[in-house]
Amino acid sequence: MSLVGSGPGDPELLTVKARRRIDAADVVLHDKLPGPEIIDTIPEAKREDVGKRAGGERTSQEYTNERLVELAREGKDVVRLKGGDPFVFGRGGEETSHLAANGIDFEVVPGISSALAAPELAGIPTTHREHASSVSFVTGHEDPTKEESAVNWEALAATGGTLVVLMGVGKLPDYTAALREAGMESDVPVALVERASRPDQRVATGTLDTIVDVAERKGIEPPAVTVIGQVVGEREQPREVER
Amino acid sequence: MSLVGSGPGDPELLTVKARRRIDAADVVLHDKLPGPEIIDTIPEAKREDVGKRAGGERTSQEYTNERLVELAREGKDVVRLKGGDPFVFGRGGEETSHLAANGIDFEVVPGISSALAAPELAGIPTTHREHASSVSFVTGHEDPTKEESAVNWEALAATGGTLVVLMGVGKLPDYTAALREAGMESDVPVALVERASRPDQRVATGTLDTIVDVAERKGIEPPAVTVIGQVVGEREQPREVER
Ligand SMILES: C[S@@+](CC[C@H](N)C(=O)[O-])C[C@H]1O[C@@H](n2cnc3c(N)ncnc32)[C@H](O)[C@@H]1O
Ligand SMILES: C[S@@+](CC[C@H](N)C(=O)[O-])C[C@H]1O[C@@H](n2cnc3c(N)ncnc32)[C@H](O)[C@@H]1O
Repeated sequence: MSLVGSGPGDPELLTVKARRRIDAADVVLHDKLPGPEIIDTIPEAKREDVGKRAGGERTSQEYTNERLVELAREGKDVVRLKGGDPFVFGRGGEETSHLAANGIDFEVVPGISSALAAPELAGIPTTHREHASSVSFVTGHEDPTKEESAVNWEALAATGGTLVVLMGVGKLPDYTAALREAGMESDVPVALVERASRPDQRVATGTLDTIVDVAERKGIEPPAVTVIGQVVGEREQPREVER
Repeated sequence: MSLVGSGPGDPELLTVKARRRIDAADVVLHDKLPGPEIIDTIPEAKREDVGKRAGGERTSQEYTNERLVELAREGKDVVRLKGGDPFVFGRGGEETSHLAANGIDFEVVPGISSALAAPELAGIPTTHREHASSVSFVTGHEDPTKEESAVNWEALAATGGTLVVLMGVGKLPDYTAALREAGMESDVPVALVERASRPDQRVATGTLDTIVDVAERKGIEPPAVTVIGQVVGEREQPREVER
């Protein structure tokens, strides 16, 4: 059993090991996040889409956990393919816990996380000797106005480092406001990187004050990451080399 | 010109694209960080080690910057190979700035960062729905007692998320003390992951209070990352599958 990261979507950003594991597998369990460019490289006969089950009797996650154990017990060579890196906001830890609890041997194959690749493919260094001594990945999924929010936006603002928000398109107005309230300057540069590494990658830039309007005007949709910090100003357009 | 991430050291954790770029290159500029297992896969005739120049007239970084421009102007197909991901504490941003300032076309090929892969290959999920809504990568290179330290350990402790410290073997006593002072509990679990993905990978675990002794007893040396947070307790030993 291999828990394998797919990277952000470009099949060339699979690792050599991921490619090998996928090609050798009997069954590849996946959801939508790896994206069509990668999923299309896998023979249909061995693909199993577990992303569609949400809303049924069991949650998608419970179903996936059970299905992994079932296939492993049948002696199948199973790849559980996850978007980006399996352990970055991917519930990979829950899957490995379930496997371990059921005595199933597994390995984890790291993948290129969109949290690093999306800024990078837009030309933004996430750390910089002069501008950022830390970079934090954070989920934008939680409502920052909720009392029990697990995300401390005030502390994140105070780190002074780069912030990369995943699953953060819908609540962009909420957490940009939370960061302003925490004392972050309104002119801090912000970038949205949509569908990084895919043929239709888009980048939108603004500031903490303008980015909500920019996102609306450009119609930015998930999957996208939000990059917040001075490093956004260090952006150098990579120019894809002709080969 | 391609700025290419090598991943943490296992040649199988190169991306398909990185492997292709290295194989097609006329010259591969590298330092020690990609590690012998990867460097040995590159024909000696096209390798150029720029990691040895430190202490000379020009710094290693200035030399590298100039050499990249020089080779590009000669029309060479150049790969600048960097350990892990090029934009994570790798001065990749400085290299792309220099290239852009000199009008040289470049692309960036993301790599698997040790900041994610090292915890992962030790079985530690860096984020977890119940234990960590954020993960922060931070440099351990700076002296936390220095007035002008750019790292705000207090804010990092307050995020409540996972902390991953790179270049943090030497100053382990300093920043664990800084985190304790910032109010982090003494029993927070900590892991050190040395030489992740390499044949001699080692993992040492303890708590914020004990990890300095553990590191000393085990003789942990760079390269290693320090993982701090409740997720360390969620560790599930991956058991490499026989193939
Ligand atoms: C459930 S999380 C999983 C993240 C994944 N494990 C990773 O490491 O990239 C899904 C979020 O990842 C981000 N994401 C995934 N693929 C992306 C891409 N190609 N471009 C931009 N963002 C992406 C988006 O923020 C999306 O909401
Ligand atoms: C100058 S930084 C460069 C980091 C690199 N760009 C990356 O993304 O992995 C060097 C630090 O990376 C970490 N590192 C690099 N390779 C490693 C490995 N195989 N195992 C553990 N830590 C590693 C160590 O903390 C080391 O001090």
